[in-house]
Amino acid sequence: MNRFIQYNPVKWIFGKGSIGRLQAEMSRFGKNILLVYGGGSIKRNGLYDEVIESLQAIHTNVYELSGVEPNPRLDTVHKGVEICKKENIDFILAVGGGSVIDSAKAIAAGAKYEGNVWEVISRGKVIKEALPLGTILTLAATGSEMNAGLVITNLATSQKIDWHSQYVFPQFSICDPSYSVTVPPEQTVLGIIDIMCHILENYFHNGEHTELQDSFSEITLKTLIETAPRLLAEPDNYDDRAKVMYAGTIALNGTLQSGYRGDWTAHIIEHALSGLYDIPHAGGLAILFPVWMKHAIDSHPARFAQLAVRVFGVDGTGKTEKEVGYEGIEALRNFWMTLGAPARLADYGIDSSRLEEIAEHSMMRGEFGRFYRMDRERILAILRDSF
Amino acid sequence: MNRFIQYNPVKWIFGKGSIGRLQAEMSRFGKNILLVYGGGSIKRNGLYDEVIESLQAIHTNVYELSGVEPNPRLDTVHKGVEICKKENIDFILAVGGGSVIDSAKAIAAGAKYEGNVWEVISRGKVIKEALPLGTILTLAATGSEMNAGLVITNLATSQKIDWHSQYVFPQFSICDPSYSVTVPPEQTVLGIIDIMCHILENYFHNGEHTELQDSFSEITLKTLIETAPRLLAEPDNYDDRAKVMYAGTIALNGTLQSGYRGDWTAHIIEHALSGLYDIPHAGGLAILFPVWMKHAIDSHPARFAQLAVRVFGVDGTGKTEKEVGYEGIEALRNFWMTLGAPARLADYGIDSSRLEEIAEHSMMRGEFGRFYRMDRERILAILRDSF
Repeated sequence: MNRFIQYNPVKWIFGKGSIGRLQAEMSRFGKNILLVYGGGSIKRNGLYDEVIESLQAIHTNVYELSGVEPNPRLDTVHKGVEICKKENIDFILAVGGGSVIDSAKAIAAGAKYEGNVWEVISRGKVIKEALPLGTILTLAATGSEMNAGLVITNLATSQKIDWHSQYVFPQFSICDPSYSVTVPPEQTVLGIIDIMCHILENYFHNGEHTELQDSFSEITLKTLIETAPRLLAEPDNYDDRAKVMYAGTIALNGTLQSGYRGDWTAHIIEHALSGLYDIPHAGGLAILFPVWMKHAIDSHPARFAQLAVRVFGVDGTGKTEKEVGYEGIEALRNFWMTLGAPARLADYGIDSSRLEEIAEHSMMRGEFGRFYRMDRERILAILRDSF
Repeated sequence: MNRFIQYNPVKWIFGKGSIGRLQAEMSRFGKNILLVYGGGSIKRNGLYDEVIESLQAIHTNVYELSGVEPNPRLDTVHKGVEICKKENIDFILAVGGGSVIDSAKAIAAGAKYEGNVWEVISRGKVIKEALPLGTILTLAATGSEMNAGLVITNLATSQKIDWHSQYVFPQFSICDPSYSVTVPPEQTVLGIIDIMCHILENYFHNGEHTELQDSFSEITLKTLIETAPRLLAEPDNYDDRAKVMYAGTIALNGTLQSGYRGDWTAHIIEHALSGLYDIPHAGGLAILFPVWMKHAIDSHPARFAQLAVRVFGVDGTGKTEKEVGYEGIEALRNFWMTLGAPARLADYGIDSSRLEEIAEHSMMRGEFGRFYRMDRERILAILRDSF
């Protein structure tokens, strides 16, 4: 087990009716609230009204930033920062999925930063504070509700960049799986793929003596694989929605990450890809991850064989580790395809004209891949195999 | 899955050499430090010198409270509170196992409370603040390093009481398994039993749709069962010490506790018992837990069968759930006995003269047992079967 620091001060409020805690949590903060949300699904399902009612009951002044897009954009963040500065916002409440939460985090940082917050996200300018924020999660996917990370896209430069700061940990996250029962099938599937990829990114690590944590990851993956088809057949099954939402949070809150450091290659390439093409993040991962696995398998065949046997039930009798591992990769890809996920970049209408640019954006912060080292040639090889 | 709130702001600093973080962590706090430790093992293994050197390097004024006993006592807490008030202590640093950490937490609460801190612990008087504290863990067992609980014994009343408050979360916990390699075999075994009992107390719950969390608990138990004999044979195996220390912390930091509420009967009776007899807590648990299981099995045989099959590899073919569950209980008891744990109250020289008193102390805060309801008669029955 490697050395690690696990620190996560988010108050995780989980379960049916947990919106009832909103007033109590908000009472610790100031009265000027910026409510951040997306395309309006929270108005259709009644959550918006519930939130407004709770906020009115404690006499807050609510300002709104709506229309946050998937792959949330720097322009939207700038709008939010402007409201915060102009209206003296005390607290940001994000109601939605990962895009809304990531935007709220970036706004929270930007509101207390004098310059352009993109300098912070893209060039590592240091911040010393951020506005406090809280979240109400409506979509299980990114895990952003219980960590200090975000991903923002700058359309002007076609860059999609992740950034982490302890100052943007949410103060609380209300995670009521009931709000996710109306999530459409495609979004549900992409959320599950996103969660699985977060677990897999960390699962491929070079740590030793991590059998306990590895088992936790394997079981969480198995749970998602069992739950996903059931949930597509019965989208309003609260208990299955709860399992997925729980898994989404533990995937990136420290529980499945301590004692080793994962690879994260597929995410880095995918961010470069969806920065240029604005495709759904998890759709990009569904394409890239199995391809990355096929490229990485020779470096650590035993690891791939373990995943295949323990998570996909591959029978390893009489086969080499690589053969077993390969069957696991195929099983993963087939599983995602049966859920309706894309398998090829061409499925999103992407051609091979900008491969060099994707590789260049991937390497913006230098070489990467802790488990299987990447360089320009390897990135290009993975991209070529993704068509 | 039941509703839950998981909140744990402790910075968990884990691994070899993590003492190197001490100065940086301490630099956030004031200069008057109360160092709390136990019987002097930290002087023998060099940790005391390392800590003092780190504290001197950042020019702190170190006051000391040493000699904290197992089953830590209110008198010791009072001594610590007195030092805090007299010397204007800013920060408490606990170096040791659960007893030292629990004492430090009680001192932290008492230092900011005008009356006798026993009113807070035993009668639920509300506190609004506590001194900040940090810990350096030397013994894997209680999990106190990463939660907001403590257990203190009042010799004057023979009461041993647990108490919880968010104000006594450690600011940081440095958990370096290297410091636990010199823990003697008996203490190592008791620590592992304590950890297993924490997991088991939570495992016996009435929640539903908690398969994922239950699997985490089962795997952690299996890991401890595999690791314990190896560690007795090779006490200085860092990797095994690391697994046990990691398991000890996740057993009670929220990871294995969210979405259901465990039973905790054996702990409540054991606290009454060791409050009267001052025996090692985990020794009492090793005796009481299997007896409690035999009493509780009829209420939920399936749960006991699951434990038996998944953790102890019991073959359930052609047997009733109760038969399978019973084999699991025997396997648990035998496992602990092979490690050298006591199996009967008589092993500690306890006779049956004070059973009524133990039952009365157990029920001090009313009836209990969320999984299998306790009353006076049932407590007495369990105690009688423990001889």
